[in-house]
Amino acid sequence: MIHITRRERFSSAHRLFVPEWSMEDNDDFFGACNNPNWHGHNYELFVTIKGEVNQQTGVLINLKDLSKILNEKVISKVDHKNLNTEVSFLKDCVTSAEMIAIRIWNEIEEPIRDLGAELYKVKLIETENNYVEYYG
Amino acid sequence: MIHITRRERFSSAHRLFVPEWSMEDNDDFFGACNNPNWHGHNYELFVTIKGEVNQQTGVLINLKDLSKILNEKVISKVDHKNLNTEVSFLKDCVTSAEMIAIRIWNEIEEPIRDLGAELYKVKLIETENNYVEYYG
Amino acid sequence: MIHITRRERFSSAHRLFVPEWSMEDNDDFFGACNNPNWHGHNYELFVTIKGEVNQQTGVLINLKDLSKILNEKVISKVDHKNLNTEVSFLKDCVTSAEMIAIRIWNEIEEPIRDLGAELYKVKLIETENNYVEYYG
Amino acid sequence: MIHITRRERFSSAHRLFVPEWSMEDNDDFFGACNNPNWHGHNYELFVTIKGEVNQQTGVLINLKDLSKILNEKVISKVDHKNLNTEVSFLKDCVTSAEMIAIRIWNEIEEPIRDLGAELYKVKLIETENNYVEYYG
Amino acid sequence: MIHITRRERFSSAHRLFVPEWSMEDNDDFFGACNNPNWHGHNYELFVTIKGEVNQQTGVLINLKDLSKILNEKVISKVDHKNLNTEVSFLKDCVTSAEMIAIRIWNEIEEPIRDLGAELYKVKLIETENNYVEYYG
Amino acid sequence: MIHITRRERFSSAHRLFVPEWSMEDNDDFFGACNNPNWHGHNYELFVTIKGEVNQQTGVLINLKDLSKILNEKVISKVDHKNLNTEVSFLKDCVTSAEMIAIRIWNEIEEPIRDLGAELYKVKLIETENNYVEYYG
Repeated sequence: MIHITRRERFSSAHRLFVPEWSMEDNDDFFGACNNPNWHGHNYELFVTIKGEVNQQTGVLINLKDLSKILNEKVISKVDHKNLNTEVSFLKDCVTSAEMIAIRIWNEIEEPIRDLGAELYKVKLIETENNYVEYYG
Repeated sequence: MIHITRRERFSSAHRLFVPEWSMEDNDDFFGACNNPNWHGHNYELFVTIKGEVNQQTGVLINLKDLSKILNEKVISKVDHKNLNTEVSFLKDCVTSAEMIAIRIWNEIEEPIRDLGAELYKVKLIETENNYVEYYG
Repeated sequence: MIHITRRERFSSAHRLFVPEWSMEDNDDFFGACNNPNWHGHNYELFVTIKGEVNQQTGVLINLKDLSKILNEKVISKVDHKNLNTEVSFLKDCVTSAEMIAIRIWNEIEEPIRDLGAELYKVKLIETENNYVEYYG
Repeated sequence: MIHITRRERFSSAHRLFVPEWSMEDNDDFFGACNNPNWHGHNYELFVTIKGEVNQQTGVLINLKDLSKILNEKVISKVDHKNLNTEVSFLKDCVTSAEMIAIRIWNEIEEPIRDLGAELYKVKLIETENNYVEYYG
Repeated sequence: MIHITRRERFSSAHRLFVPEWSMEDNDDFFGACNNPNWHGHNYELFVTIKGEVNQQTGVLINLKDLSKILNEKVISKVDHKNLNTEVSFLKDCVTSAEMIAIRIWNEIEEPIRDLGAELYKVKLIETENNYVEYYG
Repeated sequence: MIHITRRERFSSAHRLFVPEWSMEDNDDFFGACNNPNWHGHNYELFVTIKGEVNQQTGVLINLKDLSKILNEKVISKVDHKNLNTEVSFLKDCVTSAEMIAIRIWNEIEEPIRDLGAELYKVKLIETENNYVEYYG
């Protein structure tokens, strides 16, 4: 059993707020992240898959296939986008690092299984001081 | 003569476009950076000042004073903000890394001179693959 | 279940030695780290907590609260300090990365539980070539 | 129980290909990595061991001993070498990151056990976008 | 006047030796870098150009055009290649970081001038401990 | 003309204070850096030299010779030491990053000239947010 991780990056705008709350309550809870004019980040996405190494090829899967899935299912939809208004798989949720990681997991779990591997972890770095990890 | 550099960081939303141009022309030139719904970055700002070392204190200036200027004049105005619509010193310009660096220079050159040092360089990293440097 | 990690940093002096051992034995075992005049490091502390994401706010806890705990319980006590002589929670132990990580765990486990999350890991980077991880 | 990680680095040439396959099939599967004239990488190796902290010394083991094992068993054999033709423990396998990590595990597991610790993980970074982890 | 830097990466095999020297003399001077079976690196290339910012677009040049030149003239020729035997612009020279940087300068100076900018610096990082800079 | 940079690292304890000042004045000016019980850092030292590339060897100088000078003249004297009390070339000065960089320059300028190169810059990183550069 081996674990392989591929990094991809995207740069997006977002805002953290609960629509049912008042502006004051959102400011209290989310601080500057509640700015209605948006702010943004360079996100780093680390996707870890696991499985058995093919004894002939010496690899778990062809990394090009994993990168293709990540670009089709995630990066092309979030890079240089507004995470709150333009990303279908982030509809109806706060665009926190937690929720982005969970929703990315949901988008890629099945395509990765079709490759013959198992999704193990989605890690999302929002700033150099904060990151989240989701194991499904 | 010594050069000292202080790093500060900010996370902002922006959009690159020329208002006089059509949407198509802006797309051709700026690509995904022209998204009218914004995108964003974690910016890293490196400000380099130069001057003579004080022979008694062993330092050029007190770095706390430099950090205070950078926070008052720059970081508090751009962090978790929309660079196109909320930052007075970026009014009426494309919010490219080039223009942000030049305008930051203009904001801090005089306060740094008042500290007894000379502003030497403003370096702004937009992504791990791109940065600009401005020497005035 | 989600894991969230917050990074904090501190710069401290320390010395590695067993008080019951001779200077020679300490030199043999700890090498230059046994310098009685101290040496020091820029430490990086990564604290990982886990728990369920709040479905309304989209976050596990408010990271400001975690950061406040880390600063009150750890950073304010170790940053720009001598780890051997000035830190009450490091009394009576070798100030190895292992022991610092374990003692930091003991300081923050309960306050983090009071926040509604569970402490999962304390990771402490001493140099770019060495780090320790403690899971309780 | 504590986990300790030591980083070592090596710079090597290699080529990915299955000897039983045609050049065309290898090109299809491995792309540019199948270049018969070789290419190379700066590899970063992170070896994590685990065990109980010695209550007197405050450490799991003396890191100098771990570093010595890693240099004798791995780094001296792979650094500035051709991984396909010059490394005995990589004989008869594709020199993928997966296989290198697995074979390194086999080389160091026993010597680390002799130190009084248990090998927990071999992590091998091939490029900033790809790494593998092996847990035995 | 503004300076803009673009980073590109390539992974290559090479060997350092003077063909007119004996194996012993090359070993004495180049050490393990003289391995006739090759070794390799992940190179990081930082290309800095300078010029006036266009007052309408806010940028010096379109970075896509710079990236295209770097890929056509450099990266496509060196990435996953043997620098000693497969790269026409490195013919007849030692493939030291110094010579690679100088020869890259020669390949891209004119195309960058045709873009309306001036090549200012080629920086080449060979390992985290060594890099060269060439200013023409 | 080429510029070559070599990185070395050291971990040391120090304290910033002016002996002629009162404790209060030192606290006001240097803050926590005036802790009489010391604190410490992981310093990164980047030494840049310049000169003509030897047309036969393709290199400016043999980097092993530069590394040897840096280790003999600097690293062996400061690593795992107290910069205020144990380093002869830092006698009688505040151990600020500025003064350390200047004094390192004085220690290595002549030995580097003897190698046939010219010292161009000493860069000293004290934390990820602060560094100094000295050009002689």
